Amino acid sequence: MATKFMSMRNLRFLLYEVFDLASLTRHDYYHEYDRKMLDMILQAASELAERLLWPCFQEMDRNPPELADDTVKVHPAVKTMLKEFGTGGWIATTVPETLDGQQLPHLVSDACQFIFCAANYSASAYPGLTDGAARLIENFGSKALYDAYVPKMRSGQWQGTMALTEPEAGSSLSDITTTAEPTDQGFYKIRGQKIFISAGDHNAVENVVHLMLAKITGAPPGVKGISLFVVPKKRISEEGALVPNDVATSGIFHKLGYRGCPITQLSIGDKDDCRGYLVGKPHQGLMYMFQMMNEARIGVGMGATAVATAAYYAALEYARTRKQGRRVSEKNPAQPQIPIIEHPDVKRMLLFQRAVDEGSLCLLLQCSKYADLQKVSNGDEKEKYTLLLDLLTPVAKTYPSEMGILSISQGLQCFGGSGYCDDYPLEQYYRDARIHPIHEGTTGIHGIDLLGRKVLMKNGKAFQLYLAEVRAAVEEAMKSPSLEPYARELTEALDKLVQVTSHLVEISQRKGPEHFLADATLYLELFGIISIAWQWLLQAVAVQKTLERGLPTGEEKFFQGKFYAFRYFFGYELPKNEGLVKRLMNTDGLTVEMDESFFSD
Amino acid sequence: MATKFMSMRNLRFLLYEVFDLASLTRHDYYHEYDRKMLDMILQAASELAERLLWPCFQEMDRNPPELADDTVKVHPAVKTMLKEFGTGGWIATTVPETLDGQQLPHLVSDACQFIFCAANYSASAYPGLTDGAARLIENFGSKALYDAYVPKMRSGQWQGTMALTEPEAGSSLSDITTTAEPTDQGFYKIRGQKIFISAGDHNAVENVVHLMLAKITGAPPGVKGISLFVVPKKRISEEGALVPNDVATSGIFHKLGYRGCPITQLSIGDKDDCRGYLVGKPHQGLMYMFQMMNEARIGVGMGATAVATAAYYAALEYARTRKQGRRVSEKNPAQPQIPIIEHPDVKRMLLFQRAVDEGSLCLLLQCSKYADLQKVSNGDEKEKYTLLLDLLTPVAKTYPSEMGILSISQGLQCFGGSGYCDDYPLEQYYRDARIHPIHEGTTGIHGIDLLGRKVLMKNGKAFQLYLAEVRAAVEEAMKSPSLEPYARELTEALDKLVQVTSHLVEISQRKGPEHFLADATLYLELFGIISIAWQWLLQAVAVQKTLERGLPTGEEKFFQGKFYAFRYFFGYELPKNEGLVKRLMNTDGLTVEMDESFFSD
Repeated sequence: MATKFMSMRNLRFLLYEVFDLASLTRHDYYHEYDRKMLDMILQAASELAERLLWPCFQEMDRNPPELADDTVKVHPAVKTMLKEFGTGGWIATTVPETLDGQQLPHLVSDACQFIFCAANYSASAYPGLTDGAARLIENFGSKALYDAYVPKMRSGQWQGTMALTEPEAGSSLSDITTTAEPTDQGFYKIRGQKIFISAGDHNAVENVVHLMLAKITGAPPGVKGISLFVVPKKRISEEGALVPNDVATSGIFHKLGYRGCPITQLSIGDKDDCRGYLVGKPHQGLMYMFQMMNEARIGVGMGATAVATAAYYAALEYARTRKQGRRVSEKNPAQPQIPIIEHPDVKRMLLFQRAVDEGSLCLLLQCSKYADLQKVSNGDEKEKYTLLLDLLTPVAKTYPSEMGILSISQGLQCFGGSGYCDDYPLEQYYRDARIHPIHEGTTGIHGIDLLGRKVLMKNGKAFQLYLAEVRAAVEEAMKSPSLEPYARELTEALDKLVQVTSHLVEISQRKGPEHFLADATLYLELFGIISIAWQWLLQAVAVQKTLERGLPTGEEKFFQGKFYAFRYFFGYELPKNEGLVKRLMNTDGLTVEMDESFFSD
Repeated sequence: MATKFMSMRNLRFLLYEVFDLASLTRHDYYHEYDRKMLDMILQAASELAERLLWPCFQEMDRNPPELADDTVKVHPAVKTMLKEFGTGGWIATTVPETLDGQQLPHLVSDACQFIFCAANYSASAYPGLTDGAARLIENFGSKALYDAYVPKMRSGQWQGTMALTEPEAGSSLSDITTTAEPTDQGFYKIRGQKIFISAGDHNAVENVVHLMLAKITGAPPGVKGISLFVVPKKRISEEGALVPNDVATSGIFHKLGYRGCPITQLSIGDKDDCRGYLVGKPHQGLMYMFQMMNEARIGVGMGATAVATAAYYAALEYARTRKQGRRVSEKNPAQPQIPIIEHPDVKRMLLFQRAVDEGSLCLLLQCSKYADLQKVSNGDEKEKYTLLLDLLTPVAKTYPSEMGILSISQGLQCFGGSGYCDDYPLEQYYRDARIHPIHEGTTGIHGIDLLGRKVLMKNGKAFQLYLAEVRAAVEEAMKSPSLEPYARELTEALDKLVQVTSHLVEISQRKGPEHFLADATLYLELFGIISIAWQWLLQAVAVQKTLERGLPTGEEKFFQGKFYAFRYFFGYELPKNEGLVKRLMNTDGLTVEMDESFFSD
């Protein structure tokens, strides 16, 4: 095993030097925290990750959950972890103090999540899912529901899930067929099938609380007829005991990776005895669920970044210790071999990983900061941060997911043949990470979300706010002669994004939505590259400021490395926008017009 | 399981309509074959693949070889297969008739190899390796060695291997430490360790014949001191019996994929009783081995293309049958869901796969044709084809390997969550394919081979021949008004490649080899994109010719699809050259100059 899975130095750089976390604590809502306390929290998360999650990272993969005797057996570490996470308050980090939470800034809470995911992605999923499910009840459920379920979830005794997907309703949620039949006893009778339910059942908890989408009898078709229910595996009887609620685990899936967390198939109400409890109002379920899904989407981006980061540190360690070959200018085979990190192509592979992973993390923490500012602001300002967060959600989910796979693949490549074997963790990271462009909305879905919904919403207001944010960073960078050329390159790329966007909107009016959205995935890719360039420019500005203040002792290499990774992104990654722009301006409707029968033979 | 793993129609299109296989049979060496016979051979390969290889594709993955009681146990199908391959002449397809071979054109032999790899990559490796090993003995070994080993190998009774890699000598073969001590009894005593030896030992054969690199006592250091030996697992005693030869299997590797074929670690001469038989002359081993390696490299490209092709057909079948969502213009949720193949983004993912996979296959068969022409020509012409083949080897190995992974990843993405689960074969293809950018030289090694060696060799003669080949295709395409715009785009891209090449050569002279080769991997990527565009243009010309002759009945969809895939490549893939050119012209030496200590955090 590698000895390091993330960099605390980099995390602090992003939190304090790029995003000025200290400024957040001047707001009333966060005023109880100071830098010392926040540092302690980060340190505690790191120690927890090293002690509980990291040691069983491989074990959980090699001993995946199995369904036997109606029980999904998971690794024993999960039980210990959930207990410690619960008692330590880690499943309630952003919950207000009035609800017994930690009231932490999202910036810090998300940084802790990053640490947990980097140590053990499968393990981190259990508390993460519970947190999201609990928040749904908190925000939209009745006090009675809250009291009955949330404390047990936040304490790690009960698991929470998101139960959306069905065999015939994956990307198309409007097609769910799970039904909820009203009764006059305060509950609904639920019947249906759910698949791909993460942590949908396991033996490390007493109970599993599904936040489930279903259609109330007689509801309108489509998304307007979807309601949200609490459907526990075991319901609470009038005597306060836990009794079976007719939710059966009919199977678990065997997956490429992410094997430490069971993904289950559920049969609900087979015996006509499953009770569900309505959350909020009827037919508003999808709207409620989207609150959780948006956070979960950013969470996927964070998980993807974290896995790629852990892979990067493993590759870096290997590249420093593995000796192979000589400099190309060295013709004497009697000279000793050199560590492969000295080969420019290996440095290129490492820089690619660093540029992608640290750029992704920066964008995700940018989103965390918007979430914090949204919370502590009002009126127009609140709207501004809400819109920016909405706009960036598909980008912050997708760029890290898609590029994280390539980053890990380059990490594996650094190991050569050893990367393909399970003596090293790279093959597992490679498998684990492939889920990210799929779950919480595929990349294709997010492309359509970004171009078809987010860019256009409120007459393009979110998009204009985004452009202003990027331009502000450019202006700041322009002040520094060493950053000016990069700032100009980003401006050029941004101008092209604006040009592409206008062109596509015009196509939408002229040729309709299919032509408009045909290459939405590529538009999302372009948007991602430009957004990461923006985030690298912000980092470069922070580096410059530190250099102007004078480098702290022993920090020179960190800042030098940062600057090289920044230059790498602008030198190697940003130019990819050129091919994308060329394609996106070519709206020939190729994929719309091609008849599917032409795929014959 | 999907029902189709490759397209015979496409294979025939490439062989006959693009590469005019019929013209080859006018050469004396191939004159015994006519189209009818060649079709029968392709059909026989296809039937063999369907009957023997395809049915155990998943089984072999799920029951990988294990080492127990000093025996590597492989799936029982391997024994049956090797026997049938041997008796059917499939391990001697390109061997001359005078040596009891089939004397098939490489075009046909490689097409058969494509079929076998697409049906079951792991299974196809066994006879493929034996074929390559036997050819080395044939070409460079003595008659006695030939008689003792080759017939048993070609009949499928004995396995052949390439035994190059050692723990401290992977990419850097000059560092091998396996020793060969001369004796006066006609053999050498071999001692050393070899790792990552594919099919290095297994119970489906009576014997394993290693073509092994070792250094004769007192040999010069580096590559000039490497010799090639036949080192059998069991040697032939004076009485003609097989007796142990002190080659022990000390371990097998557990791999991400490609699990049906054992990759072994060998301990040679632990008991000081391992005999090796010199092939050819002392110290010429690497030169001999490169003959096999060059073929093996093109074989890796073919394997990569084949696996990606099988994944494409599985994705296509799923996309036709899986219903999800509605057209974006359809607002009525009561309308039935549509097959996902009707969504433009899914068509885009399928077209990407088809453009990459059929483009790769075309380039590989282009290499096969050069190999055939090299065989039947003399003098300048022979040199021309030899140089073209040398130049294209790193491209034909790498583009299919690197892009095959992305192609399969898009195939997996078409399946959504199901692609991540082992109910469908995509997750296996995804794992299997990751070996291709690693074995037979990593992508980084091939970048350096292309730019540092092949482009420059003979004063750039191979490169000039390549440019002439591409320009000839462009000229042909220019004659057709519908192809002219594409031909112009390829010309522009080719001109940029020339410009980049000149720039890099100038950098080499000014800044030395490290700066010159720092981005060789990107140069290889650019070269690959342009080469595949060339091959698609050749295909488009063939389509146009067929259209002019009049479409055969029932073939319209195939040709329409071909033309869409061609347009896709030029519309979506070729533009990627722009970002690459921009980077390659920016020779700032970023990765050369960055000190490795800056990766510290």
